Parts: sequence; C-alpha cells; structure tokens
Amino acid sequence: MLGGRKGILFVISGPSGVGKGTLKDRLLARQEGIEYSISATTRPMRDGEINGVHYFFLAKPEFERMIASGDFLEWAVVYDNYYGTPRRFVLDNLNQGKDVLLEIDIQGARQIRERYPEGVFIFIAPPSLTELAKRLELRGKDSPEVIRQRLSHYDEEMAEIVNYDYAVINDDLEYTTLKLSAIITAERCKVVRFIRRDEIGTAFDQQTDEGK
Amino acid sequence: MLGGRKGILFVISGPSGVGKGTLKDRLLARQEGIEYSISATTRPMRDGEINGVHYFFLAKPEFERMIASGDFLEWAVVYDNYYGTPRRFVLDNLNQGKDVLLEIDIQGARQIRERYPEGVFIFIAPPSLTELAKRLELRGKDSPEVIRQRLSHYDEEMAEIVNYDYAVINDDLEYTTLKLSAIITAERCKVVRFIRRDEIGTAFDQQTDEGK
Repeated sequence: MLGGRKGILFVISGPSGVGKGTLKDRLLARQEGIEYSISATTRPMRDGEINGVHYFFLAKPEFERMIASGDFLEWAVVYDNYYGTPRRFVLDNLNQGKDVLLEIDIQGARQIRERYPEGVFIFIAPPSLTELAKRLELRGKDSPEVIRQRLSHYDEEMAEIVNYDYAVINDDLEYTTLKLSAIITAERCKVVRFIRRDEIGTAFDQQTDEGK
Repeated sequence: MLGGRKGILFVISGPSGVGKGTLKDRLLARQEGIEYSISATTRPMRDGEINGVHYFFLAKPEFERMIASGDFLEWAVVYDNYYGTPRRFVLDNLNQGKDVLLEIDIQGARQIRERYPEGVFIFIAPPSLTELAKRLELRGKDSPEVIRQRLSHYDEEMAEIVNYDYAVINDDLEYTTLKLSAIITAERCKVVRFIRRDEIGTAFDQQTDEGK
C-alpha cells in the first residue's frame, strides 16, 4: 500500500480445534495483499492435505537439520511432532513491504512474539471448553486420548490471551472472519506504520499519484 | 458487546473540507452500537442543517455560560465561531459501556487527547492540498477568503497526524468508510479493552451464553 513501508506480520493463534485453519482459509480468500506463510511439520499428512500447500511435510531428521541451521523463525514440539515456521519466506516478504499471515499454535506464537514483537498477535478463542471439545470430536482427526490431552491444556492456553493484541471469539465463522479482516485493515491504517524514519508528508505523498 | 466493559471514544478529525461530516454520516449508517456526540456551535446554521441533529446551534452568550460552568469536554474558537463538545452526553455513554463517535476539528481533537488519552484518534487526510482546495470550492459553503484562510493552515494541520492513532486518506468515500468501520471493529477486539480489572476468563464468559 505504501512505498517504503515495511510489511506487517499477522499471527493468528489459539487452542487446537478452535478453527484457526478454516478462518485462515476464509481470510485469505477475502483479504488482499497478504502472503500466507506455510509451516513445516513432521506430523503425518491428513486426508486431503497437500505437501507445500497445507504444510511442508518433512521427515524428522530433515527438520532437525533445519533447526541446527537456524532456518526456522520458531519451532516447537507439539504432541510429539515438530512444527516450525521457515524463516526466509517471512522475512523476505516483510522486507519487501508485503504483509504476512502466520497461523500457528500457542507455543509457536510465544516464540514469534519474543523475536518479532512488532507483529500483530490475534488470539482465536472458542466460545467455551464444552464447545471446543465438541469441535475436536466432530473434526474426527484425533483419537480420544489426543483430544483429552489437547483439552487438558485449555486453562493454560486461555491464560495466554493477555499476551496478545487482539482476541476474537470464534462463535460464528462469517462474523469472525469479518473481524479478522477488520483487524488487518485497521492495522494498515495505523499512523506508526507509515511514520517510521520518514516525514509523514513524504509517506503520504507515496500513497497518492498527486503531489502536494 | 461486553458486560462491564467501558465504552470506547472514537474521535474523527482532519482539515476542514476533507469530508469528515459525510464520512461520519456514512459510518453511522453502517456501524452498529455507536452513539454520535452532537457538537455545539455558534456558527450560523447552513442550508439543510437542523438544530439538535447536525449541531446544537447556540448564541454566543449561552455558549460562554456553558464554558464557565465546565459543561464542555473541549471547546475552541475556529474562524471566529465557538465549537464545543457537551461533556455529559459523552461521559454518560462511555460509563454505560456504549461507544461514542466524535467528529471534530483538529484543535478540539487536541484537547480531547489531553483529557481523554484512552480515546481512539483517527485523522482523515485529503489526497493532496490541491484536492482539498477543490472540495472546499465545490462545497460552496465558504467565501474565497475563508477558503484561503482554511488552506493556509494545511501544513500545520497535516503535521498533527503524528499525534493520532490512525490516519486514513479520504480518496474514495466508500473505501474510506469501510476503513473507519474496520478500525471500530478492530478496536473492539483489542485485548486491553476487556482485560481491565477483571480476569480474562470472566470477561470472556460475559461474551457468550455458555458457561465454561
């Protein structure tokens, strides 16, 4: 939108089963000018998932080699699988002035916040624990044991909200998508985004074809 | 939206002729749950304006009495006329948890910022000085002398942007309204809005009919 402006990193996170993935897809379909950062993982591919689209599916030794080379912006072990965000894609886009969207688990978001606090952190919350349990069961992707494990972290995960910039309750997919889209639009209008080192006048001139 | 939550004060400002009034009308028609604070003024009523709708039109002695009684949240003299924001309407609504919209000139916004820094300040900028001059002439409400006077403050007024939270260039009415609406929606999702003194869990429970 602005020449010379640095891209904004938007991080969507929240408990597993809250609907982050669906929201991310709907958001990308609606919102222009944002690049999605595809995560890498060692977890098994699920039905309908495509390598390089939903995740980069890697073998453990490969993932561990990348960790050693510092190729991840963040990585974590979640339920015995590695998850990570390849560093280069994110930083290259931000430096080129493009906004980037990350959809990651809560551990990953915490690491990103430490390393890139100027990111915009959005917590997706379920309407309730009961509703979250229902969604995890309906999704049918996890064994009852894994579901129990996920839900056992509920209070601890919800307590993370205080470290986020925004929190949105996912009680209605369409309305929640609209809120996420509004957050992106609003953040792009923030004065701090286009002040930086330049004079404001210069920054504004870059937004329009007419000179002052 | 949230029981116990304090209302948010949204302040829209910018140079005269930039389109604040039109944008405010469009925004109010689109955005739910926001109360518009009607300003008081001693300037002459323009064609089509209604007392108590567009402004409270007051005589100078009456306005000065209200100043003396501390009845204004801010007041200013602009081009020989008084403008002011009646205090009670704004504070009562905020305390009842209702969001309030103010559309005021730059001097007024500066005073509000000093007295109510937790407000959300949005600067409406024209695409350029040339465009602003064109709009003031097309509006046909001011004499060439008044227009010249207004434009002479352009650089000074634009320099105020750095004190605002958001800045939106009004180059397209529909798109600008959408951005303003997005800012309101996004601000309502900010974590700081519903943390306050309460536990986050309590605040979230108030957003939904289901208990945890």
